[in-house]
Amino acid sequence: MDNYNISERNRVKRIPKRGQYDKKTVYEILDAGFLCHVGFAIEGQPYVIPTAYGRIADTIYIHGASTSRMLLHLQQQHVPACLTVTHLDGIVAARSTFHSSMNYRSVVIFGEASLIEGEEKMEALAIITNQILKGRWEEARLPNQTEMKATSVLKIEIEEASAKVRTGEPKDDEEDYVLPVWAGVIPVYQTFGKPIADSKLFPNVDMNESIKIFL
Amino acid sequence: MDNYNISERNRVKRIPKRGQYDKKTVYEILDAGFLCHVGFAIEGQPYVIPTAYGRIADTIYIHGASTSRMLLHLQQQHVPACLTVTHLDGIVAARSTFHSSMNYRSVVIFGEASLIEGEEKMEALAIITNQILKGRWEEARLPNQTEMKATSVLKIEIEEASAKVRTGEPKDDEEDYVLPVWAGVIPVYQTFGKPIADSKLFPNVDMNESIKIFL
Repeated sequence: MDNYNISERNRVKRIPKRGQYDKKTVYEILDAGFLCHVGFAIEGQPYVIPTAYGRIADTIYIHGASTSRMLLHLQQQHVPACLTVTHLDGIVAARSTFHSSMNYRSVVIFGEASLIEGEEKMEALAIITNQILKGRWEEARLPNQTEMKATSVLKIEIEEASAKVRTGEPKDDEEDYVLPVWAGVIPVYQTFGKPIADSKLFPNVDMNESIKIFL
Repeated sequence: MDNYNISERNRVKRIPKRGQYDKKTVYEILDAGFLCHVGFAIEGQPYVIPTAYGRIADTIYIHGASTSRMLLHLQQQHVPACLTVTHLDGIVAARSTFHSSMNYRSVVIFGEASLIEGEEKMEALAIITNQILKGRWEEARLPNQTEMKATSVLKIEIEEASAKVRTGEPKDDEEDYVLPVWAGVIPVYQTFGKPIADSKLFPNVDMNESIKIFL
């Protein structure tokens, strides 16, 4: 009941033991980021576009200009979408090139998108904004009517999802452990620098709480 | 001549001034990474899969298990692919949520993939391996016949590409500069930790040059 259904679409075929279908794992990976890659196909031509997202329960929100090709396409009925989030955690240097790999956490989501309006649209924008900077929605100037009109927000209800995770050391062939080749992991992190104030910032403006956590 | 052709497919429609079509910019963004998101569509269903890549001139190489659904699909003739590389460089906190944004460098590539074999296949694996860890191909055990058979390598000749880049400060509406909201940029980096030796590493094995640069 706390797992996504497994179909031919979301089943992890390559190295199935890395595949996970429980919502807890999927949510954790989604909540650790705010940048996804959205896939859609127009007349057979696939497009993959990076964009921000927000999540609440099994709903993913994305937004952009109302004139965006991606949003205009995806808001049509019965248009399948794919949304992928990837965190790179390490370069896995094995003794052989064949067993060299990466450590990562990724989620692939399938679902259809629909345009949302009114109160739900405003709530969705708050979720996206706060997924990037926690609490920012409560600090910044909120969108006015003109801005709301210029913005489209889509929700994607997760129909199917899978997570794929690799952690840990290289796994070499038994006979390769004697080779004089260094093996191990180079950790990879996404790190944040100290906030850099806008050059036009008025001197009496304090840093907001959503920003202070980066100090 | 050093630019990609611009078509309806690769033209940057949203905020066109962020769009760039020169090969130099596209190559720089591609060469700054080794992880891409590949998009393909099977019977209208889009898939977006993270994978490693290598680049030389206008050719991108990807690889994986010969049984991979993605590789089996893309190696067919006349199957359009999309390959996207994104580097997140900053969170842009504007005074308004509407003008809040991200700094990033991204490239979207369109082309068709084809399976490669023989010497070219080995060269392509060297390019992918060395894109991740410079010089690793010259250090590690190279693939044997069984491993080569288990691996497929595809090349994608870039037909069309575009880069999209945002840098710098937030751009707020004139009247918002007086608001008591902090504005600026939180830089985002991909950073590498110190290499962690495999617990089974023989004590007399020196660190290879491809790994030492992370010290």
